[in-house]
Amino acid sequence: MTDGLLFHETDPIAPIKYVYRVQNVLHRERSDIQEIVVLESEYFGRILVLDGVVQLTEKDEYLYHEMLTQVALHAHPSPETVLIIGGGDGGTLREVAKHSAVKSIDLVEIDERVIEVSKQFLPTVATSFGDRRLRIAAMDGAKFLDQTEQSFDVIIIDSTDPVGPAQALSTTEFYSNACRRLSPTGFLVAQTESLHFHREFVADVQRRLAQLFDIVDLYTVPLATYAGNWWTFSIASKRYEPRKQARSCEVSTEHYSDDVHGHAFLPKSLYEKLIRQ
Amino acid sequence: MTDGLLFHETDPIAPIKYVYRVQNVLHRERSDIQEIVVLESEYFGRILVLDGVVQLTEKDEYLYHEMLTQVALHAHPSPETVLIIGGGDGGTLREVAKHSAVKSIDLVEIDERVIEVSKQFLPTVATSFGDRRLRIAAMDGAKFLDQTEQSFDVIIIDSTDPVGPAQALSTTEFYSNACRRLSPTGFLVAQTESLHFHREFVADVQRRLAQLFDIVDLYTVPLATYAGNWWTFSIASKRYEPRKQARSCEVSTEHYSDDVHGHAFLPKSLYEKLIRQ
Repeated sequence: MTDGLLFHETDPIAPIKYVYRVQNVLHRERSDIQEIVVLESEYFGRILVLDGVVQLTEKDEYLYHEMLTQVALHAHPSPETVLIIGGGDGGTLREVAKHSAVKSIDLVEIDERVIEVSKQFLPTVATSFGDRRLRIAAMDGAKFLDQTEQSFDVIIIDSTDPVGPAQALSTTEFYSNACRRLSPTGFLVAQTESLHFHREFVADVQRRLAQLFDIVDLYTVPLATYAGNWWTFSIASKRYEPRKQARSCEVSTEHYSDDVHGHAFLPKSLYEKLIRQ
Repeated sequence: MTDGLLFHETDPIAPIKYVYRVQNVLHRERSDIQEIVVLESEYFGRILVLDGVVQLTEKDEYLYHEMLTQVALHAHPSPETVLIIGGGDGGTLREVAKHSAVKSIDLVEIDERVIEVSKQFLPTVATSFGDRRLRIAAMDGAKFLDQTEQSFDVIIIDSTDPVGPAQALSTTEFYSNACRRLSPTGFLVAQTESLHFHREFVADVQRRLAQLFDIVDLYTVPLATYAGNWWTFSIASKRYEPRKQARSCEVSTEHYSDDVHGHAFLPKSLYEKLIRQ
């Protein structure tokens, strides 16, 4: 496929398709879990595609990964133990690894091949798989949370869309297990799709988290390359206020900063409309 | 084209194409200026397309029109005279007409046929063409501003992308004429494309406005249906601070509200990065 077009198949959960012009297919394989493709585009750089859905582009992945990670890691005064569920590309891990306060990082990825492909083709994303604080479990994230005895200060759900393999990562049982495995000061944060196209899903997650946590909130970032773009992150906390930084930003970031932190949260009027819908 | 796909041809200024599933073509004509098409989509409702580019969908047009209009109209304590350049679909006019403080509305649309088509096919958008405060001039907006002797409290640039007919609506000469035709308390606000895909254009407009106005700022809203989505509005002011409401919101809106007003503006850290780039 030289100078061809990739159709970003976002159906069934988005009513719009994105079409990227790509110059090259760098890699294509079928793992036990899914089809893994790496494309090359002049504008977007390398693009990771799982089962036909764009997961990241080198050009704008920093927006997603920084915002998924840095809000909870800065709202917690001393995040020592971090669990990443999903995130086989390594972008979330890269962001977590920036923090010297973090003493252990568990990454639970259902598809080891995503890690291997990212190491080979996405060197600016998969930067931290050699981190000595890292333990990798190649298994289903829902099963891991059900079985583990560990406790975490921050749990990050870096999942694909909530259909197929990732469906188990947004059930009430899953959130309940996550809540149980959080330390008394813990944060849970999850990517929860688009405020344009999956508003009901977002509102549903928020309501279900509110049954488990005292503090539940929602923040967003506009992304260029996920259908629906107005991307949401649901955050739940046992003690600390997610909207407030406990520590100011001393790690190197492109988008996240002290004033971006609070600003990313939905204004109250919009939040109330969402939840009341 | 029944149950077919419309390709949203965003090239050359966006590196991505959006594909909409549409059920019906309600109207198609070639005016003296451009091709005008109205499509029907189950998800997005009716869609207005000019020269192949989606201008609005019934589903999400309120986000664009409210944000283009309501920020300046609430930052000005008594906006009496308003000029809309472009906006033939009537969405911006609908938002301006909500304000009883407004005494006159001039709408300068280069293509009268857009107005007629919108009246016929987009009744929830083209609501206010019967407003007794309205005067319509069917002419080029740049020419109008060059020739008029009138002065305005708010000038709103509701243009298509800055290629083709709308190219004249983002030149320094145009902004300079707009500055000259603003009252001493006036606001100029313009849609200025996507912060993802047209960042250099946005920064360039901001810098050029800063040569003409004491106060220049940028606010955004994530849109579902324009390529790049992280949509920007450049606002310039002769006296009042755009980030502050002079009056709280008493008109009926779906998205804009008192807390959305200031929140829509870019955090300082992001603004500085943009301008320094």
